Amino acid sequence: MSVLQTTMASTFLPAVGRVAVCGGTHGNELSGVYLVQEMERKRKEKGDSVWPVPVTTVVSNPLAVKECKRYIETDLNRCFSNATLSTPITDSTPYEVRRAQELNALLGPKESAGATDLLCDLHNTTSNLGLTLIHYTTNDWMTLHICKYLQTKITRVPVRVLVLDIPISAAYSLETVSKHGFSIEVGPQPNGVIRADIYEVMKEAVDLTMDWIKIFNSGTVFEGGDIEVFIFQKSIDYPREPSTRELIAAIHPQLQDRDFCLLKRGDPMFLTFSGETVKYEDDETLHPFFINECAYYEKGIAFHLAKKWKLSIPRMQVQK
Amino acid sequence: MSVLQTTMASTFLPAVGRVAVCGGTHGNELSGVYLVQEMERKRKEKGDSVWPVPVTTVVSNPLAVKECKRYIETDLNRCFSNATLSTPITDSTPYEVRRAQELNALLGPKESAGATDLLCDLHNTTSNLGLTLIHYTTNDWMTLHICKYLQTKITRVPVRVLVLDIPISAAYSLETVSKHGFSIEVGPQPNGVIRADIYEVMKEAVDLTMDWIKIFNSGTVFEGGDIEVFIFQKSIDYPREPSTRELIAAIHPQLQDRDFCLLKRGDPMFLTFSGETVKYEDDETLHPFFINECAYYEKGIAFHLAKKWKLSIPRMQVQK
Repeated sequence: MSVLQTTMASTFLPAVGRVAVCGGTHGNELSGVYLVQEMERKRKEKGDSVWPVPVTTVVSNPLAVKECKRYIETDLNRCFSNATLSTPITDSTPYEVRRAQELNALLGPKESAGATDLLCDLHNTTSNLGLTLIHYTTNDWMTLHICKYLQTKITRVPVRVLVLDIPISAAYSLETVSKHGFSIEVGPQPNGVIRADIYEVMKEAVDLTMDWIKIFNSGTVFEGGDIEVFIFQKSIDYPREPSTRELIAAIHPQLQDRDFCLLKRGDPMFLTFSGETVKYEDDETLHPFFINECAYYEKGIAFHLAKKWKLSIPRMQVQK
Repeated sequence: MSVLQTTMASTFLPAVGRVAVCGGTHGNELSGVYLVQEMERKRKEKGDSVWPVPVTTVVSNPLAVKECKRYIETDLNRCFSNATLSTPITDSTPYEVRRAQELNALLGPKESAGATDLLCDLHNTTSNLGLTLIHYTTNDWMTLHICKYLQTKITRVPVRVLVLDIPISAAYSLETVSKHGFSIEVGPQPNGVIRADIYEVMKEAVDLTMDWIKIFNSGTVFEGGDIEVFIFQKSIDYPREPSTRELIAAIHPQLQDRDFCLLKRGDPMFLTFSGETVKYEDDETLHPFFINECAYYEKGIAFHLAKKWKLSIPRMQVQK
């Protein structure tokens, strides 16, 4: 494991005032869709004071949710780069690009002082990710403090933090329109299916994030320390038939469901449909994740590989 | 458990001459799609003699496979009743009804002397069904003998036999166009995903069916005996919001993945999104199956219930 050294001085940040929880960014990932509905039902019943701060709840891709599809024309969660957000709208602009610009107006604007303070975007995966919190940059201390808090509090599934080290301007996910925040990925759950166990993990993560906001806003000091994170390195595709691009192998049973294990030279990676094992031949030992995620077949990804790092995060408290 | 009494006299049946293996009847159930492709690759490489009899391999719904959807316009595996197979084709006939009539011409005609002797239709489910063999009627001795053979030989997953007691003329599944045969359901596997472990179970079931045909055609006597089967009784829907018909609960964690367990009065059945348990209130103890199958949300089915029976099947051998 490598260590990224950072300053250990105290950091002061403004109170969290504006929060958003979004589900259905992918319309067939149902835990978030039903959790947002449940939050809206609860607000109707008990009023806004059910949360420490006002929460904007959003069904991000309502047309895709209605059709129980990932997206209608293009993957909404790839539409929040500065470039796509500033694309002029024409008659041929895909639905999701229009919707991304609407969401940016509602929850951002991205990289502006008026943006939402904290955004949680709720996702499911067919991979055995447990609870994985995904965000950009290795120095968003508030996000990392919340991740650490969730790691401490949640015990029934592994809680991991994944960093995609991409400049915010180029980062394409919904949570990047806010100042802080993350995607909450919970799996395994098939697309188009809701599992109570997976729903409960997601609900616990959102409830604990609200608890954290309450504690932070009240002036409590969060001590600094180390946090283990996984940093994306590269992607591996399935073996395919050269001319048709059809799959000729599946993830090997010894790799399936073992997200975040260590993959080293010689380990089984794929099993061809005729029964042959394809091994990992790279010298670099890395951690595979998003193993056999349904939506990544069309993107040419069998799994991603990450490196494990330890980040030092500073002591943090609210600015008075 | 109830016992259906049947005659124990020897039964003689003609040799199995014409066999079909079909995948992609639902286009997003990938094990069958890739297994049929693999069988076609093997035939190309080694010739027809790789199997004991000629095998017709079919991708049942090629358009749905291409789009990785269950179906294009209507569920193909509900189109093989005599009524639908004799519907006149017009401009507005759904793609799958046309395709069902094509498949009936290729593999049937249903209930005719010229029909395929034995048809295996390959399916996956998001439910924890292990390997489940589904067919119609409690007195298709050849099908029941093959099921018993698979139960004896396959040890890595539970092998169960499910009977839908519907007259063949009204039965709507692809395998009903042949004289004998069954659907092979293997799960759990998400739609649009291929898992090597699930694929291997399906492949073993098809390979063993071929072995059975070889042994049967060679004149070996299959002794009679008892076989345990599940007979469909009724379906249970999810709790829904009365006006919108939206789900308000998921399958309870204590029922999820427990297909073919015993469900008795007072057992947890659903967990609402606000955390309340809904219990099974019926006095009749039954066996739930197809628990949380993705494709059944739109059909208003959370799970089916079955009764367990013991069938006596007669000694059987090939007609000389």
